Amino acid sequence: MVDSTCRVVDVKEISNNYRDDLKEWIDQSRARPRLVGFLANKDQSAITYAKWTQRSCEEIGIKFELRQVEREDLEEGIIEANEDRRVDGVMVYYPVFGGGHDQYIQNCVSPFKDVEGLCHTFRFNMYHNIRFIDVQKKSIIPCTPLAIVKILDHLGVYNHEFDYGDQLNGKVITVINRSEVVGRPLAALLANDGAKTYSVDLDGILQFHRGPGKQKHRVTSTDKTLKDVLPVSDVVIAGVPDKKFKVPTELLKPGVVAINFSTDRNFPDSVKEKASVFVPAIGKMTIVMLQRNLMRLYDYRRDAPFRFRFS
Amino acid sequence: MVDSTCRVVDVKEISNNYRDDLKEWIDQSRARPRLVGFLANKDQSAITYAKWTQRSCEEIGIKFELRQVEREDLEEGIIEANEDRRVDGVMVYYPVFGGGHDQYIQNCVSPFKDVEGLCHTFRFNMYHNIRFIDVQKKSIIPCTPLAIVKILDHLGVYNHEFDYGDQLNGKVITVINRSEVVGRPLAALLANDGAKTYSVDLDGILQFHRGPGKQKHRVTSTDKTLKDVLPVSDVVIAGVPDKKFKVPTELLKPGVVAINFSTDRNFPDSVKEKASVFVPAIGKMTIVMLQRNLMRLYDYRRDAPFRFRFS
Repeated sequence: MVDSTCRVVDVKEISNNYRDDLKEWIDQSRARPRLVGFLANKDQSAITYAKWTQRSCEEIGIKFELRQVEREDLEEGIIEANEDRRVDGVMVYYPVFGGGHDQYIQNCVSPFKDVEGLCHTFRFNMYHNIRFIDVQKKSIIPCTPLAIVKILDHLGVYNHEFDYGDQLNGKVITVINRSEVVGRPLAALLANDGAKTYSVDLDGILQFHRGPGKQKHRVTSTDKTLKDVLPVSDVVIAGVPDKKFKVPTELLKPGVVAINFSTDRNFPDSVKEKASVFVPAIGKMTIVMLQRNLMRLYDYRRDAPFRFRFS
Repeated sequence: MVDSTCRVVDVKEISNNYRDDLKEWIDQSRARPRLVGFLANKDQSAITYAKWTQRSCEEIGIKFELRQVEREDLEEGIIEANEDRRVDGVMVYYPVFGGGHDQYIQNCVSPFKDVEGLCHTFRFNMYHNIRFIDVQKKSIIPCTPLAIVKILDHLGVYNHEFDYGDQLNGKVITVINRSEVVGRPLAALLANDGAKTYSVDLDGILQFHRGPGKQKHRVTSTDKTLKDVLPVSDVVIAGVPDKKFKVPTELLKPGVVAINFSTDRNFPDSVKEKASVFVPAIGKMTIVMLQRNLMRLYDYRRDAPFRFRFS
């Protein structure tokens, strides 16, 4: 029996609003912000993604410049772009070296130009629920987790009856993926907004929640399995890079909000029998958040001088 | 035919000199510097190493405090230690989470207390041959690579006929291991001092050398194998965590300086037939360098205020 009430959401209906706002923002700035993307691998899908980013940037008045470099020249290229006043944002198509050296490279991007929000300053702020880097200047959040937060907001999962920072109170959310650039930050963001959050990967399930004191988010081990957490989750977000992995529909809570951010399809078609909302892909929203981060940093640099604090 | 001229070096004969100098430094400072080590895994060898560190610290007047914490409490523990004026140095026994999150944790240690030299500021300085963080204040170098540099200096591989920073001119050195915490930094340090340096791991062999301009070190790909690089290397340094891996003696250059920093024995006994010097283990030297880094940071913090620049 197929429940026909499931709404399948094309994120375009959400991202277009943000895109229009951004276009207005850029028009008003009367400049042409410049984003530099470094491609230092031979990954064909990265090239496709880069071209897609370029088209999307040009549409709203952002100059996107793809710089293809040998990976041995990447660090030097980033440093040049950091120091070049004509460059407003720097991004890199990962993986390049893979492993720890990519994280070193992420930290070589100046926080003044880090549109991906991957340098330590922004990561630390995010994990510690430090939302501002200065008066009126919000910290930069990684694009994919931010895209998912904005989608949840649009879908009404964020409850505006509660104060800012508490709008996921009472919600249980499961995130299946705990990568350092998407799954872990996302779980932290959701916990920081008040959700009871389960973070799933092959090693097991952790609970992310807010603790007392200034370090608002806390992580604790659990011995739970998907059988425990899926039936109680109001939202299930999956990003497993494995064609074979499927979230078992029979474990989902009726009326669940299901979001897939994997390039593989982590939910089977039967998800529509259980879910109230299903978002099959989020890519367009991620690019708009990248552009939004660029415009934030663009404005910050043109504002009064300020300094990043060492965390 | 065994060439009996090979000198097998117990690093104690080198580390004792540094230890005596340190003891004098500490006695003169008329304080008791405090090092905090965080143990957040159940690794029995880490516990053994921690006890060894403790004894070695107490011997020369450093207070060593081992804090055993759950890994979920590690970050908060580090932040407390960062802010605690009574703590002079912070170290962590890795791996804790493994992968990228450990590098995040490394960046949570304040550069004012980072005795292991693993935070981004120090890594960046090292790769870019930036030797000072301020007038008279040298940047902190990770302990194991630093220990090997000091051993090479003691053995006369560093040639004091050349200027500081060029004392490995004319030397070819192969480093077998390219981990982010030992092999890669070591290759960069040796290249920064003028050596032609080959860096070997399972992916292949890279050459580290100095380039022009402010980014002094450069990395280039090669299609060389051990058969190409070992016969031309004046120094071979191995740190492969694999009992089965052995550096093939028949490929070594006669008179080579051979150094093992793996807990496994990477050189077979026959190395003594080829090498002029063989250093089978370096652990004692690593601990002394840790203590030396602690004393540097201790002095820096007690000196006039200074600021770490963002790289």
